[in-house]
Amino acid sequence: MRNIKLILEYDGAAFFGFQKQPRHTSVQEVLEAALSQLFNRPVKIQSASGRTDTGVHAAGQVVNFKIDSPMPVQAIQKALNGILPKAVAVLKAEEAADDFHSRFSAAAKTYEYRIWNSPVRSPLLAGKVCHVPLPLDVAAMKKAAAVLKGRHDFRSFCGQDPARKGERDTVRTLHDCSVSRKGSELRIRVTADGFLYRMVRNIAGALVEAGLGKLTPAQIEKIIAVKDRRQAPKTMPPEGLTLISVKYAGKPMKNKKAGKAKSL
Amino acid sequence: MRNIKLILEYDGAAFFGFQKQPRHTSVQEVLEAALSQLFNRPVKIQSASGRTDTGVHAAGQVVNFKIDSPMPVQAIQKALNGILPKAVAVLKAEEAADDFHSRFSAAAKTYEYRIWNSPVRSPLLAGKVCHVPLPLDVAAMKKAAAVLKGRHDFRSFCGQDPARKGERDTVRTLHDCSVSRKGSELRIRVTADGFLYRMVRNIAGALVEAGLGKLTPAQIEKIIAVKDRRQAPKTMPPEGLTLISVKYAGKPMKNKKAGKAKSL
Repeated sequence: MRNIKLILEYDGAAFFGFQKQPRHTSVQEVLEAALSQLFNRPVKIQSASGRTDTGVHAAGQVVNFKIDSPMPVQAIQKALNGILPKAVAVLKAEEAADDFHSRFSAAAKTYEYRIWNSPVRSPLLAGKVCHVPLPLDVAAMKKAAAVLKGRHDFRSFCGQDPARKGERDTVRTLHDCSVSRKGSELRIRVTADGFLYRMVRNIAGALVEAGLGKLTPAQIEKIIAVKDRRQAPKTMPPEGLTLISVKYAGKPMKNKKAGKAKSL
Repeated sequence: MRNIKLILEYDGAAFFGFQKQPRHTSVQEVLEAALSQLFNRPVKIQSASGRTDTGVHAAGQVVNFKIDSPMPVQAIQKALNGILPKAVAVLKAEEAADDFHSRFSAAAKTYEYRIWNSPVRSPLLAGKVCHVPLPLDVAAMKKAAAVLKGRHDFRSFCGQDPARKGERDTVRTLHDCSVSRKGSELRIRVTADGFLYRMVRNIAGALVEAGLGKLTPAQIEKIIAVKDRRQAPKTMPPEGLTLISVKYAGKPMKNKKAGKAKSL
């Protein structure tokens, strides 16, 4: 059996999340349907690097599936793109090692949260950004981001009781947490060895509060220390979030500040 | 009566074009409905700088309407944004001179045509770009653009019999026609004193043919000279096109190459 790795881009607005579920269209459902049509037998994906929520986009989601077929990876990619709906595309298909698992082998993931920071909404970016009409102080957001960066117990940023989501260990290393502005658009970019449920949207919520002058770096330190979701700012909506890329062991991270690849 | 100028952004995919028509939702229809609701009487817009086709976007469409009301322009803008559907927004509302007419007073307009030039489509840019999978030679496109720039009879680039569209004079001055690439995305930007029906999408079609190596600058010169739409390359689809901005007399153009503002 070959193990095939796929890199996917998708518009989260078109799906009820990545994970297959009854009655609602998911990325997994249309992908497995396309794979099953292509290989003329039921094909299931083994895993995705992470399950994006409804409305969350991906520019580099990684999945893998096992198949007993001689079809070249380029042909698999092209055929899938011909079958899949327009809202999802296979950017790359490649052979992976037998033990490659898109979720368990992941060494680090990068997400981006986009904010349209202008009094007036942007119809042309609707569904791709979250609109924050009040002015955000990027310098204050950067200071807040610096506090979040590093190895912490992120329990206060986990969207549900960690035990219920099977997350016993809530310690994660945030290699990067940066904020940039270009015109009216703000981008929060985070890279970590792993993310808890809704962690990026909760971090974005804290950074927005900091940008509005409602939260100091010292208060963010306290929120981390208290390990209680109820003490932390609200979750930001899904449409601003995009899973950018997933890194696997052996491939060095682009972010130099994150140190050597093996430390990821 | 006051004359109010509005600058609009809208997602063309949500409307059957700008112009009001039976049975299909247009930008004009939702705007006039919002204005009529706001002022509690029937309000019609006098004009738009140009009628964008179905699927064509705007980042700076300009319209104007006459009103007998003391409401400040800031309040008009905010109230309209509260009433209008999400796919359209008023970026600015301002007082205009009595004789200001958003169409007839326009001195120049700028459009942008976006192309996703990659073997794989981009779900995240769907509806905002036109997908051209074969590689485009930007240098060749720039040479072709240089031929189109300037004052010409653009009859070969007019999408319908000019007489039927009330366009007796098909001479226009293309102040700017530039092509740029950033990663997989190409942008064609054109500024002219006026545009014929589907002229930008027809220019984009010619530039794409040039980028594919199917059309030389000399052939484009011939196409201009022959003044026959049937001799010119095909029209590009609407989703890649955005009306960027409209300039009015008295406001100098940003593009220095276009010369003095009054010459526009």
